[in-house]
Amino acid sequence: MQTLKIFKIGGNVVDNPQILSKFLADFNRVSGDKIIVHGGGKEATRLASALDVPVTMIEGRRVTDRRTLDIVTMVYAGLVNKRVVAALQAIGCNAIGLSGSDGDAIRAVRRAPEPVDYGYVGDINASSVNVRLLTDLLGSGMVPVLCAITHDGDGLLLNCNADTIASSIAVALSQVRETELIYCFEQPGVLTDINDKSSVIPLITPDDFPALKESGVISAGMIPKIKNALDAVRKGVRYVSVKSSDDILGCTGTTVRL
Amino acid sequence: MQTLKIFKIGGNVVDNPQILSKFLADFNRVSGDKIIVHGGGKEATRLASALDVPVTMIEGRRVTDRRTLDIVTMVYAGLVNKRVVAALQAIGCNAIGLSGSDGDAIRAVRRAPEPVDYGYVGDINASSVNVRLLTDLLGSGMVPVLCAITHDGDGLLLNCNADTIASSIAVALSQVRETELIYCFEQPGVLTDINDKSSVIPLITPDDFPALKESGVISAGMIPKIKNALDAVRKGVRYVSVKSSDDILGCTGTTVRL
Repeated sequence: MQTLKIFKIGGNVVDNPQILSKFLADFNRVSGDKIIVHGGGKEATRLASALDVPVTMIEGRRVTDRRTLDIVTMVYAGLVNKRVVAALQAIGCNAIGLSGSDGDAIRAVRRAPEPVDYGYVGDINASSVNVRLLTDLLGSGMVPVLCAITHDGDGLLLNCNADTIASSIAVALSQVRETELIYCFEQPGVLTDINDKSSVIPLITPDDFPALKESGVISAGMIPKIKNALDAVRKGVRYVSVKSSDDILGCTGTTVRL
Repeated sequence: MQTLKIFKIGGNVVDNPQILSKFLADFNRVSGDKIIVHGGGKEATRLASALDVPVTMIEGRRVTDRRTLDIVTMVYAGLVNKRVVAALQAIGCNAIGLSGSDGDAIRAVRRAPEPVDYGYVGDINASSVNVRLLTDLLGSGMVPVLCAITHDGDGLLLNCNADTIASSIAVALSQVRETELIYCFEQPGVLTDINDKSSVIPLITPDDFPALKESGVISAGMIPKIKNALDAVRKGVRYVSVKSSDDILGCTGTTVRL
């Protein structure tokens, strides 16, 4: 059985019709079973602004009050998710959009209000993922497209982090088959010099990481992503790739593995 | 095999948390395979108003320009659909929310701009419905919850009429099993006197309809619904019921059959 590939795309992809279209065309050419997890933060910020709902971010995470929850539910589960699904259907890829509530795909736990009250925000891990549902959909030839809205099983929708959803799905499915997680972003990989796109670090292993971190080669924004990636490979994901959303079929990128 | 029941609920149900909660609790007690199709027009009108997007209705149908399409996609496929799904999950009903684009569930044809240009509005019939997808989901023990957003298979999302989606699904699935279509609304059935809730007409057949219409017993707003219902039973749906969303387990209501 071919490796299952889970692609995470963020705002830089879903907010730009041309970049999204190129990504989806390439994604459609990837063979074997595959899943997309998407963000959509910029569009949510735009709608919040149009509705005069203040946006509060703490350490890059959106504080989600009741009105913000409605906004992210509308944007992530509605606008962005259905745009991606309809665009994939148009190129012959049988996509099915899911929030965590659909088919109980991902059940989150609402984050405690201490030390920071993020509001309607959920935390998940691999055990939150409905492996059977995703396996059944993949087995029927469908391509699950997941947004970052989950539920608590008690009627509450919760805003989650899309990177964590992608890694939790990859870890959960690695229990039943070989999985690869691909974080797509605007750079060709993890760079040693942010101004030099040719300075991609081809491989990072758990042994390399402390030195790369201490020397400052891996900088602030990339540290949580690489920690997340190392955590995923320790928990069973075969590879995590960090690469450009513009070149997912190419060989350039950073691979994280044991 | 038990009759498959397709319930259509409109704005009066999805816009009112208490009515919705009662409806979903009753729905959860309905035995056998079942599907929900929902509207959500009032919430969409509210969002349009907050965003200063003018709302234009022609003969009860929403004219859907580009911005309105985004609004109805957000409200129907995001906010309302995920609220219903999460509420069902909370009471142990394994709901899965779908737009017509998800799994290519319903493929519509964009309506011609003549004689009236409704914008991004789609028309469907029974042949637009992906019977295999719905049958597979039902066979896996899931309860499909469909909103009125569809796609054209070419990347465009389209706004459809939820009544027509419900009847098209019922007709399409009647090819493979016995189906019943239940239109839930704020009255206990089709009334001979709009001010007297006890004046429910228990049964309407194709033979009765012309006389009921001519005598004015069935009034303007109900005519398209009954026509739709008669069309559905002529095309294979066993029964169409028109009943109160507040009493779907009760016996009160109007049955339309051959």
